[in-house]
Amino acid sequence: MCINCDYTIHRHQHHFGWDNSFEPAARVAPGSTIEFECLDSSGGQFSPESTVEDVKTMDFGKINPVTGPIFVEGAEPGDALKITIESFKPSGFGWTANIPGFGLLTDDFKEPALTIWKYDPATMEPALFGKNGKVPLKPFAGTIGCAPAEAGHHSVVPPRRVGGNLDIRDLAAGTTLYLPVEVAGALFSVGDTHAAQGDGEVCGTAIESPMNTVLTLDLVKDARLKMPRFTTPGPVTRHLDAKGYEVTTGVGSDLMEGAKMAVAQMVDLLAGRYQMDPVDAYMLVSTCGDLRISEIVDMPNWVVSFYFPRCVFE
Amino acid sequence: MCINCDYTIHRHQHHFGWDNSFEPAARVAPGSTIEFECLDSSGGQFSPESTVEDVKTMDFGKINPVTGPIFVEGAEPGDALKITIESFKPSGFGWTANIPGFGLLTDDFKEPALTIWKYDPATMEPALFGKNGKVPLKPFAGTIGCAPAEAGHHSVVPPRRVGGNLDIRDLAAGTTLYLPVEVAGALFSVGDTHAAQGDGEVCGTAIESPMNTVLTLDLVKDARLKMPRFTTPGPVTRHLDAKGYEVTTGVGSDLMEGAKMAVAQMVDLLAGRYQMDPVDAYMLVSTCGDLRISEIVDMPNWVVSFYFPRCVFE
Repeated sequence: MCINCDYTIHRHQHHFGWDNSFEPAARVAPGSTIEFECLDSSGGQFSPESTVEDVKTMDFGKINPVTGPIFVEGAEPGDALKITIESFKPSGFGWTANIPGFGLLTDDFKEPALTIWKYDPATMEPALFGKNGKVPLKPFAGTIGCAPAEAGHHSVVPPRRVGGNLDIRDLAAGTTLYLPVEVAGALFSVGDTHAAQGDGEVCGTAIESPMNTVLTLDLVKDARLKMPRFTTPGPVTRHLDAKGYEVTTGVGSDLMEGAKMAVAQMVDLLAGRYQMDPVDAYMLVSTCGDLRISEIVDMPNWVVSFYFPRCVFE
Repeated sequence: MCINCDYTIHRHQHHFGWDNSFEPAARVAPGSTIEFECLDSSGGQFSPESTVEDVKTMDFGKINPVTGPIFVEGAEPGDALKITIESFKPSGFGWTANIPGFGLLTDDFKEPALTIWKYDPATMEPALFGKNGKVPLKPFAGTIGCAPAEAGHHSVVPPRRVGGNLDIRDLAAGTTLYLPVEVAGALFSVGDTHAAQGDGEVCGTAIESPMNTVLTLDLVKDARLKMPRFTTPGPVTRHLDAKGYEVTTGVGSDLMEGAKMAVAQMVDLLAGRYQMDPVDAYMLVSTCGDLRISEIVDMPNWVVSFYFPRCVFE
């Protein structure tokens, strides 16, 4: 229960994909604070007892349910929706999967795989991965967005200028996010909550974890924002940077190929050093490794770097 | 003077571009510690008195001189050169330029521009930008590499698998860098020292600053490294993250276009908020803003984010 919330939107009040003709779950005044109960990105298909067999039989029609939509009174195209991310109430259960055909290294990892996570939602201490790994947690909502102007039903998978499946790991508690509004009322929804993710979400999934989030929705009239932007209240990586990083790089003329090179080499490095199955290393780095563009101007070759926090194993 | 150095390679011992037929400046045993005097990336064409006129008349034949090369005894193709980055002795002078035709937003910034920096090399306190900006400093070498196997002369501009113009801002003191060796002796050189740079080096230049660096060169035999990799001894952004970040994004199907969108919006944001000339904002963010790939799996749209440290103005 949220003490200072004006509304609670329950987990059954969700939808699949984006469509600006969906009926609002609530109509709220700007400035309202709302608790959203969010399902995980499998829509409840995984549980602490799930096995890799459940990845094979997953129903993709139930992917990434989002809770909402919220009609914000007075919101019009050209405005920005200002979302203050107040808090998260994590569940303690999470999963990470390699889903064939999905992820940065689909050609290297063609078999399904599943990691089940258990963490303490009270302390949010780093979660154990295998015998020795510890992944620092930082909850956020992977999918957070407004309805697009274009009529009809749109897949939830690709993010858009109105937000959606942004998977930006710093949309955490304390951050203020601004999203372009394209339809009357904005029609805001949120879901796909993650307990932890690195920049890139390279294997295609994070620590997928059902949780509640409290958000305050407000308006900036006539903001004429082109793309999502956000402000963080403080540092974004101090929960995992204390022991420094192992970093691999991909140097070449294509950023996507550079990213693949960098991640593939990190998987090789960790799998060799810690005697891990490569697919386990791939899932692990998706939850805590960061893709950065180190250099994008030294024609014709760019440098993409992949930063793995050494605290996970040290 | 470096107390514990085995060699000093002086600033006149430099070369332009890479060529594995260059005569070594020194032949050293693995484990040697060497001080390198490095020119700035203009090869001394800029001084504290330089103006934008000097950008217009810059001689591109003198770009990015690197000090060396060092022949490391016993180094053979297939080995890795292990470079321990011991320290930097900065000069206190730096420059940042918008050079037409070079940089991420060349279409938006077609006129030359120049910022001259002065900083205290003893304290390395953040350097003043305009009246209100303060850019935290963290020196590193932008160009650090070995000679490529392919015969002939090669431009210094693009980085390669043997390193070179990597412009990775975390190749700072304390970091250990591993580079693939492609020729006997490795033929290592270093230069293009920077007092500060953000991930991406988006305007094409950083705080370009002549300085000395002390490095220890060692070998890892038969390492079979594909690309440069490095290990940082600790956090990499704590000098600038204390007050959080302003972040802009580029959402779309092409990482390069996403990066351009994100940076262009940050330039707009800062220019508007702080009444700056857009080209000044562009040069500023190149010295301290970070390009990250937030999401690279939600087909067909990726999210590139540009993080600007709020400490610069707050």
